[in-house]
Amino acid sequence: MSINKIVKLFGIKYPIIQAGMIWCSGWELASAVSNSGALGIIGSGSMYPEVLKKHIRKCKKATNNPFAVNLPLLYPNAKEHIETIIKEGVPIVFTSAGNPNTWTKELKSHNIKVVHVVSSVKFALKAESCGVDAVVAEGFEAGGHNGREETTTLCLIPDVANKVNIPLIAAGGIVDGKSMLAAMLLGADAVQMGTRFVACKESSAHENFKKMVVEAKEGDTKLTLKELTPVRLLNNEFYQELVDLYKQHPTKDILMNKLGRGRAKLGMFEGDLINGELEIGQASSQLNNIFSASEIIEQVLNEFSSYKNQINNDKKFIF
Amino acid sequence: MSINKIVKLFGIKYPIIQAGMIWCSGWELASAVSNSGALGIIGSGSMYPEVLKKHIRKCKKATNNPFAVNLPLLYPNAKEHIETIIKEGVPIVFTSAGNPNTWTKELKSHNIKVVHVVSSVKFALKAESCGVDAVVAEGFEAGGHNGREETTTLCLIPDVANKVNIPLIAAGGIVDGKSMLAAMLLGADAVQMGTRFVACKESSAHENFKKMVVEAKEGDTKLTLKELTPVRLLNNEFYQELVDLYKQHPTKDILMNKLGRGRAKLGMFEGDLINGELEIGQASSQLNNIFSASEIIEQVLNEFSSYKNQINNDKKFIF
Repeated sequence: MSINKIVKLFGIKYPIIQAGMIWCSGWELASAVSNSGALGIIGSGSMYPEVLKKHIRKCKKATNNPFAVNLPLLYPNAKEHIETIIKEGVPIVFTSAGNPNTWTKELKSHNIKVVHVVSSVKFALKAESCGVDAVVAEGFEAGGHNGREETTTLCLIPDVANKVNIPLIAAGGIVDGKSMLAAMLLGADAVQMGTRFVACKESSAHENFKKMVVEAKEGDTKLTLKELTPVRLLNNEFYQELVDLYKQHPTKDILMNKLGRGRAKLGMFEGDLINGELEIGQASSQLNNIFSASEIIEQVLNEFSSYKNQINNDKKFIF
Repeated sequence: MSINKIVKLFGIKYPIIQAGMIWCSGWELASAVSNSGALGIIGSGSMYPEVLKKHIRKCKKATNNPFAVNLPLLYPNAKEHIETIIKEGVPIVFTSAGNPNTWTKELKSHNIKVVHVVSSVKFALKAESCGVDAVVAEGFEAGGHNGREETTTLCLIPDVANKVNIPLIAAGGIVDGKSMLAAMLLGADAVQMGTRFVACKESSAHENFKKMVVEAKEGDTKLTLKELTPVRLLNNEFYQELVDLYKQHPTKDILMNKLGRGRAKLGMFEGDLINGELEIGQASSQLNNIFSASEIIEQVLNEFSSYKNQINNDKKFIF
């Protein structure tokens, strides 16, 4: 019997979590991941309340294992989402982008496990003080929305592990068994992978976007729009338009206007690689193929075991 | 007998390298590190040719073990430094900030081992094609001058390890035995630590600066001056002046003028924490004390062994 804190907390088999991501992680991906023994998460940030309800119901039909919903707390429909989550009996909620004080007690009063996503030691301590069950600490290399401190996973995980007492999930730059083992060595109890599950058969990302993700090379993602919310994107024509715009010292309003509405959907869900906002992590450079969720979990676990053995057997570690 | 490639290449005992750093790593630090079985490096980027000659001679007197000189290739006195290095019989040179094609052949023709510092896969491949013996791949979290790709150590090391055939040294965010083990898991043969050795008794950094380094918290360093050469600094009054200046959309010339000359010396060597440029890595947040070089090496090795054991024994890794 494992005493891994995250395995115990969620009642899952492996300490691997699929990040809740806009336009990529609906019930198909979440249930496939949960059916493989990891934790699947429905990303509600791109769903209207009615859509979220459907995804939760379909997910419950597709798996008997625990799954979660990710909720960006600043999302305009957050209150309705919370009501849906409680009503539909979702067992675990990952909150992000907002104040964990607002909803944690309410969710926990309904026996829902609450995990908050943070990008710094300060926010990890704040989340802990609000009573969350665990934190995800996400480094600078992560895709999509990102912290202002720009602390990398390698530096953030040991620092958060030293400061908080609740279980810790590492995110940002983790795509395989060796990065999972490294993150756990640094102090994490489990890992959350986003980018890896974008390039997954069950992901609802557009095929064009998945293809661009597995073709990405080192240096192909950039953190931008720091004056709004920092976001890591693939370097495409839209990103280059931002680079040009920045040369004119745009105001926040001009940036918001340029970004417009629906640009992430356009790129990630509808496959417009030119005009879309393509949110992905730095570790996309390490991906070469699109696999199913069960294949990804199996590969990660096999790599994890083989790297554990390598530490004992590879003579490069002996001196 | 270890078959670790870096241990063999340099003829040292442990695959640990002390980064060559301006104003911090003179002969006292380099020889102390080399005497402890790791590789000490004299940072020549802040030395006039006559000063470098003295440091090399003192280092040779202070240790019988291999040591190296770090040379930023864009340094105005680079040619004279190269001549000094050859004449004084320095066995290993770490080059950085410049084209590895310029001097590698000349150095190698004198039986000098050449290692080049890179921040991307592209530059690693370029360095390999120029015939260097190894590369240091340095991530975004590193202190001082930094790459433009902003790739973190966690993402950079696996990518470079997959692409180059020569030995690989990881740098950026590595301060202890667990980050060393993580970096080697990710594909490195050895690690280079800068920040950790700034806060070292034998470092020639000013005591004020050392004290500020060990008191730094997560989020206290920033990458700035990207229009010149990106550099990671402690957030002090000078950094805040830069933040204010950036609000006025400064030209490159205005930034260069603001930076002026000698500001790194002022801060790091002379201890002016207000007006100085204080170059340090993100992992400074994890340091709490100033130790001697031999104590640091011993601690890192002990932690390295204990984390190797932890992977076999801690039940969090079993599921």
